[in-house]
Amino acid sequence: MPDENTTIKQLRDLMAAFVFEREWEQFHTPKNLAMSIAIEAAELMELFQWADGKVPLEENKLAALRQELADVIIYCLALANVTGIDISGAVMEKIKMNAGKYPVDRYRGRYE
Amino acid sequence: MPDENTTIKQLRDLMAAFVFEREWEQFHTPKNLAMSIAIEAAELMELFQWADGKVPLEENKLAALRQELADVIIYCLALANVTGIDISGAVMEKIKMNAGKYPVDRYRGRYE
Amino acid sequence: MPDENTTIKQLRDLMAAFVFEREWEQFHTPKNLAMSIAIEAAELMELFQWADGKVPLEENKLAALRQELADVIIYCLALANVTGIDISGAVMEKIKMNAGKYPVDRYRGRYE
Amino acid sequence: MPDENTTIKQLRDLMAAFVFEREWEQFHTPKNLAMSIAIEAAELMELFQWADGKVPLEENKLAALRQELADVIIYCLALANVTGIDISGAVMEKIKMNAGKYPVDRYRGRYE
Repeated sequence: MPDENTTIKQLRDLMAAFVFEREWEQFHTPKNLAMSIAIEAAELMELFQWADGKVPLEENKLAALRQELADVIIYCLALANVTGIDISGAVMEKIKMNAGKYPVDRYRGRYE
Repeated sequence: MPDENTTIKQLRDLMAAFVFEREWEQFHTPKNLAMSIAIEAAELMELFQWADGKVPLEENKLAALRQELADVIIYCLALANVTGIDISGAVMEKIKMNAGKYPVDRYRGRYE
Repeated sequence: MPDENTTIKQLRDLMAAFVFEREWEQFHTPKNLAMSIAIEAAELMELFQWADGKVPLEENKLAALRQELADVIIYCLALANVTGIDISGAVMEKIKMNAGKYPVDRYRGRYE
Repeated sequence: MPDENTTIKQLRDLMAAFVFEREWEQFHTPKNLAMSIAIEAAELMELFQWADGKVPLEENKLAALRQELADVIIYCLALANVTGIDISGAVMEKIKMNAGKYPVDRYRGRYE
């Protein structure tokens, strides 16, 4: 699948070009982008507002989810572009931090 | 920067291993992960609740943002893992769709 | 204005009747209602996603805001109904707690 | 319970006084308040992130919920104060609108 051959940088660049062509940098303050991520996250969540969403999801729900997830990630890419945050570094570091916080032998099968 | 050489799949696999080792798949329903993305998005947004967040951000705000952004993305990766959504494909398709919806000559410098 | 003569209980009862008539109590778990509050809060927030929203708001934005605010509050009423929380008591107590946390002489004109 | 004897206006006035004493009107733009509602809604939701929250809730979860619900409502009151929206009118109108949208005989026991 494309995720195997696509770097984070390639997606960032796609988004940067989209924004640049429209001269939308002026709207992309960190505050506005943070709001946008939260708004799109809520739209994604709305798909499961009253239903549990057992996997595998039915086809039309999966298609809607795919679009909403893309929207969340698109604004994450834009926020990373604006602030210069390296996503891979941030994610790897945070997973490592979480691994230290939740040692396997104590948290296997439990989250608290 | 690492984003140049890191594929989406590599980050997905890191997260999948973290979840697998702790046997946390049982908690990772799409509904719970959708909520988790929204919760982390709100924590990210909280950094700009009363302040505008002009770039460049001050150092400690940037460090906090880096962690919160990682949290949002981590749960996006987990949701993609659970549902089998290809992130790159979804993002590329959505940006293309948005490019059609917001033609450059009509939306340059304006978003509505 | 009606707020002067309307008790919280009256609004709670209106919502309770609406839910009862439709036999929707089965969907109104605290988890689902918490999600619903967050979803409606995001829709409210969307009105200010790219714009600042200086008061007085323009008429159609105010009308939209009125509806979105009602949606948030409606689900708050439903959650209070399901859990038996007394809203007035909770709000009065929290404002008192905040007054202790943010003494006037130290926080006048500043929030941190 | 206090909700029986407390008007919306009384709660609004409590919040208005709290804000006025601290000269916080300057921070209470509709945009910032909308963000604040969403942030508090996410904190409320966090109580049910991994757990279902069957009623009756356990005592310490109920106490936490009471505070988080108060936080959401406090910012709703502040937003109503800033914009002059009558909450009771807005809620009554919206419930009436929803009653028209979801007629009892068609939506009894189902939401779609």
